[in-house]
Amino acid sequence: MRILVLNPNTTASMTEKIGAAARRVASPGTEIVARNPAVGPASIEGFYDEAMCLPGMLEVIRTTPDVDGVVIACFDDTGLDAARCLTDKPVVGIGEAAYHMASMISNKFSVITTLGRSVPALEHNLHKYGLSARCARVRSSEVAVLELEEQGSNATNRISDEIALAMAEDRAEAIVLGCAGMTDLTEFLSARHGLPVLDGVVCALTLCESLVRLKLRTSRLGGYADVPKRKLSYAN
Amino acid sequence: MRILVLNPNTTASMTEKIGAAARRVASPGTEIVARNPAVGPASIEGFYDEAMCLPGMLEVIRTTPDVDGVVIACFDDTGLDAARCLTDKPVVGIGEAAYHMASMISNKFSVITTLGRSVPALEHNLHKYGLSARCARVRSSEVAVLELEEQGSNATNRISDEIALAMAEDRAEAIVLGCAGMTDLTEFLSARHGLPVLDGVVCALTLCESLVRLKLRTSRLGGYADVPKRKLSYAN
Amino acid sequence: MRILVLNPNTTASMTEKIGAAARRVASPGTEIVARNPAVGPASIEGFYDEAMCLPGMLEVIRTTPDVDGVVIACFDDTGLDAARCLTDKPVVGIGEAAYHMASMISNKFSVITTLGRSVPALEHNLHKYGLSARCARVRSSEVAVLELEEQGSNATNRISDEIALAMAEDRAEAIVLGCAGMTDLTEFLSARHGLPVLDGVVCALTLCESLVRLKLRTSRLGGYADVPKRKLSYAN
Amino acid sequence: MRILVLNPNTTASMTEKIGAAARRVASPGTEIVARNPAVGPASIEGFYDEAMCLPGMLEVIRTTPDVDGVVIACFDDTGLDAARCLTDKPVVGIGEAAYHMASMISNKFSVITTLGRSVPALEHNLHKYGLSARCARVRSSEVAVLELEEQGSNATNRISDEIALAMAEDRAEAIVLGCAGMTDLTEFLSARHGLPVLDGVVCALTLCESLVRLKLRTSRLGGYADVPKRKLSYAN
Amino acid sequence: MRILVLNPNTTASMTEKIGAAARRVASPGTEIVARNPAVGPASIEGFYDEAMCLPGMLEVIRTTPDVDGVVIACFDDTGLDAARCLTDKPVVGIGEAAYHMASMISNKFSVITTLGRSVPALEHNLHKYGLSARCARVRSSEVAVLELEEQGSNATNRISDEIALAMAEDRAEAIVLGCAGMTDLTEFLSARHGLPVLDGVVCALTLCESLVRLKLRTSRLGGYADVPKRKLSYAN
Amino acid sequence: MRILVLNPNTTASMTEKIGAAARRVASPGTEIVARNPAVGPASIEGFYDEAMCLPGMLEVIRTTPDVDGVVIACFDDTGLDAARCLTDKPVVGIGEAAYHMASMISNKFSVITTLGRSVPALEHNLHKYGLSARCARVRSSEVAVLELEEQGSNATNRISDEIALAMAEDRAEAIVLGCAGMTDLTEFLSARHGLPVLDGVVCALTLCESLVRLKLRTSRLGGYADVPKRKLSYAN
Repeated sequence: MRILVLNPNTTASMTEKIGAAARRVASPGTEIVARNPAVGPASIEGFYDEAMCLPGMLEVIRTTPDVDGVVIACFDDTGLDAARCLTDKPVVGIGEAAYHMASMISNKFSVITTLGRSVPALEHNLHKYGLSARCARVRSSEVAVLELEEQGSNATNRISDEIALAMAEDRAEAIVLGCAGMTDLTEFLSARHGLPVLDGVVCALTLCESLVRLKLRTSRLGGYADVPKRKLSYAN
Repeated sequence: MRILVLNPNTTASMTEKIGAAARRVASPGTEIVARNPAVGPASIEGFYDEAMCLPGMLEVIRTTPDVDGVVIACFDDTGLDAARCLTDKPVVGIGEAAYHMASMISNKFSVITTLGRSVPALEHNLHKYGLSARCARVRSSEVAVLELEEQGSNATNRISDEIALAMAEDRAEAIVLGCAGMTDLTEFLSARHGLPVLDGVVCALTLCESLVRLKLRTSRLGGYADVPKRKLSYAN
Repeated sequence: MRILVLNPNTTASMTEKIGAAARRVASPGTEIVARNPAVGPASIEGFYDEAMCLPGMLEVIRTTPDVDGVVIACFDDTGLDAARCLTDKPVVGIGEAAYHMASMISNKFSVITTLGRSVPALEHNLHKYGLSARCARVRSSEVAVLELEEQGSNATNRISDEIALAMAEDRAEAIVLGCAGMTDLTEFLSARHGLPVLDGVVCALTLCESLVRLKLRTSRLGGYADVPKRKLSYAN
Repeated sequence: MRILVLNPNTTASMTEKIGAAARRVASPGTEIVARNPAVGPASIEGFYDEAMCLPGMLEVIRTTPDVDGVVIACFDDTGLDAARCLTDKPVVGIGEAAYHMASMISNKFSVITTLGRSVPALEHNLHKYGLSARCARVRSSEVAVLELEEQGSNATNRISDEIALAMAEDRAEAIVLGCAGMTDLTEFLSARHGLPVLDGVVCALTLCESLVRLKLRTSRLGGYADVPKRKLSYAN
Repeated sequence: MRILVLNPNTTASMTEKIGAAARRVASPGTEIVARNPAVGPASIEGFYDEAMCLPGMLEVIRTTPDVDGVVIACFDDTGLDAARCLTDKPVVGIGEAAYHMASMISNKFSVITTLGRSVPALEHNLHKYGLSARCARVRSSEVAVLELEEQGSNATNRISDEIALAMAEDRAEAIVLGCAGMTDLTEFLSARHGLPVLDGVVCALTLCESLVRLKLRTSRLGGYADVPKRKLSYAN
Repeated sequence: MRILVLNPNTTASMTEKIGAAARRVASPGTEIVARNPAVGPASIEGFYDEAMCLPGMLEVIRTTPDVDGVVIACFDDTGLDAARCLTDKPVVGIGEAAYHMASMISNKFSVITTLGRSVPALEHNLHKYGLSARCARVRSSEVAVLELEEQGSNATNRISDEIALAMAEDRAEAIVLGCAGMTDLTEFLSARHGLPVLDGVVCALTLCESLVRLKLRTSRLGGYADVPKRKLSYAN
């Protein structure tokens, strides 16, 4: 099976990190195709970046047809609904994946994301998915996405501090890391704080593999009906 | 005052119709600047079109800076949050405008939109705005957006039939027309059925004028914080 | 166009202040008719006052028929539903108006009202309108309504302190002032704190003007059906 | 113990019927004081009547101080919050009482009320009480309140027909009769249809007795704080 | 009338205390039959205990047929739905009873329960009953259930401290004590803090008496349909 | 990896069918241990059966310690929270698994379960999980659980008829089969109706495998804290 792990921003080092994380948990027979758009924002931080990465990321999906499923590796789940109209292969967002899995191992979880400007977008998604009541709080660490790529930044400590607050103030039973760039921190932070810490990339990869294995495809009825051919052409 | 009335699809005849509707209700001192993107989908029907029109429509906003407010004239309110990060001038979506106004003149309203594929996007918005409980049902007339532009189509009758069903089955006290292309039908349909029929274009125009007059601007705190300059440049 | 701006309490100085605020933002052709009931509570603070002002305020509506729309200038939106049964002219409450407008310029807002006893009534309204999720918190400044009318009171500072708390603790992106008597404080407080501050009186006035201009009238179907004539007579 | 059973409309025959119903289920030591206001609407059907009956019914409460609790015998629970500010004796509405009790003997219930114009008020209440999810549907029988007082009307049959529909279409497991004037129909309708049929008058009476017996009084903190003395005087 | 007051844990001293509390508020003609299962957990603290007490407590109901109603005296309302399938006599849980009654004497209440591990179960129930919005917060005193049975423990003071916090931080207008073992503390704590303090045992007893007096029985339609006879036999 | 697939009822043929379904989708290295309790109800249909199967099924979990995760193969997800207190290995219910997966491939799904008496339990779960808004309707086929085990019954056709209704009346984009005993029908029904049909057993198995692979364990903080040793002993 081949899974497209699509980083919607254009930062190649992040794409590599995400791809590596996916490969570490992939089943033996699964090939990970990690890609990012050619043009678009270097990081997704808030509503404007979410919008601007869309044509680039949908283009990647349209031009990578030989895969069995797609993971959208931006914690805002940007473009998720649009992607599901473009292909009936399963498409899983890393935000939704982490939320669904966190709700199976805890009564309440908190999310630690990057900048405060991203918080409302995540709150909207939780509300849309119906999981607002399971999320104690969406917290921002005020660590920018690209700081996570820098050696020697203090990013991990700031995220760790926020986890401590979530445990003390929110009664969080689990933590969801709210950025694909945090995918390599889960083990360390889980051990330090003694509670489950979830990363959306690996959650989404295994969920997508599962949907493929179960031959479950996106419904073509209603909101995810096929995009008519002529609608695809104008973009060329 | 100058208001940009932005049709996110590329169909110029529809932009003209929308502009004319806005001008009919605008205050004496208000100038309507009706625009559409140069490239993008010819109609917005569902999640994929919503995504693909975004860079084009945001480009129009960035290159039309000499206005006092913006109306996004697509009933899906596509790009609304992104636009609010791009300018602190008031930005009003025609969907939200119609829903808010309908909730001030009725206890429950139904929405009549174009194709069934658009229904879930509208239901998501109603849920996000908190107005799901006020909307009895989102109905589709199965009239495509561009059929509304054709002379002699049976579009009006099909919409009218759906209104009759909404009154009988949903106990709707008012009707919201769920497409900017229906803006010229309200008077006729309201008279025929004896209940308020709302069009989002004119609702949004007057709401946007009001926000401008009251000097109310989009908050720069939190989710609608200014997009950093460097984030604007990659798109060039 | 003539708009009845109805202060449901009997404090004439407050009626004047509210009328002046409405006139400052009214369109050129709009005449403001500011009125209050002859008998009833001098201020509306909580559920009991809300109930006791109703016959007086509904009497004003019945005896001021030559207007095109009505603004109910009490932040509790008291009598709103009853007024809509009495006339099919648009009736807008200043609470709902401020909430709807705040939700178009911010992701989350906080409300600063007068006494703590008024908080539950406002929370009920937000829940009823569906906007609870958009309101971070309803806060009381413990400034009584009539203190707002006194020269030299410390009212403005106490409200300002509460705004600072709302920004720090609630992550509020905008502030709604929860009393008609605060209508003259918005500009000062917005400048001091650097975020939008909304007053319901001017929001409601422009919304009401908009509904009149769009010829949108309260639905006569369902909950707002006309009151039968014989029902009006017993009150005489 | 003495309980004031307060019919907020001015129809004395209905007050008598309600008082008799309360007496049939009252505990041995309980005296029922059945009253109605001197002036006000003859029946409560919708938002306007709800408003107009308030001063009259609150006057009855203020002038009947020697009771231990109050039942408000209008299914819209009109004036409930205001009454709770006027006395710290328990005040129970017949609507809320029936909803709470129905939710203890069924998973879902439907409400059968009088006219369609009353439906939104009841839906608002259910939403406010949090019990919307337990109510399958609020149905109107189109029987006017005063028809219930007429000999030989077909009212019972029309209500019975609506119950049959609620069982077939709503999967209702219990029925709540949505008008104090239907208090004498429960036994007959329950036997005919084979499911619990609840009347709010008797539910509220026993709940009020229970609160009195348990010495539970309305909280004086927050929204139900005592009305200041000077606020009571203006009404004289 | 005979009411079975069923303590689902096996601690006889607690059964006695609960029975005594019920007797203090029972109507003259009501006989209280206080029972607990022969085997099962000594205290109910969290989901596992809730599950393990079920067969024992349902056995008590099946073998005590000569009663008119049942009170389940565990604040988690464990087994409530199952019990309602076993008998059509009214079955009332002490948690639901306290929540319903608290919502009639306050706008918002807080719950003070025993251990933190019990909090999510109570939050689930409040969500299920629709009363989440009325509950400001579920707090744990970290007093274990059986500590409440010990002479000289500091339990009362710890609960009292938590009430003070609920008043200051949650704006709670009333307090619900979240454990049957706290039934004898209400009067003392209410007097100390000046707000209503509710105990579920006495609330449920009077509600159950009321349902019996009103001849209201659990619906046999839908979810509470009779358990088929053969289903009862396997347990023997 | 070894996964315990636990059928909470005592019907061995159903356990075998469920085990076989799990094995068909299990990863190469996964061993399926299919078990059912020694005593308890032969089928789980409604609240009473749910309660009575708990000690038996929890006993199986306690006496099968050498597994890496647990699937509870009853669509009511009975005992899910209790099981999570008994082991920190991942525990997945087939109901929640199907709902979560359906919400990733459709905007709205309907559930087809067995008897009407099971509907409220499933509705409670959907409400608890936050997914009520994604479920168009829970429908009953009136096929009893054990009929699904009988050769020559008309069960499949009745379920198929109900799917057709869900598509026509509920606008369902996907179908969830609401009973573990329907696990072998998905392929046939999906092909016949042209939409995704989900079975909880295989959804839960792959989700449980994923959690194990990701080393995500149930949180020991809050509601799922370890059951104290002494609490385990009383059951012996």
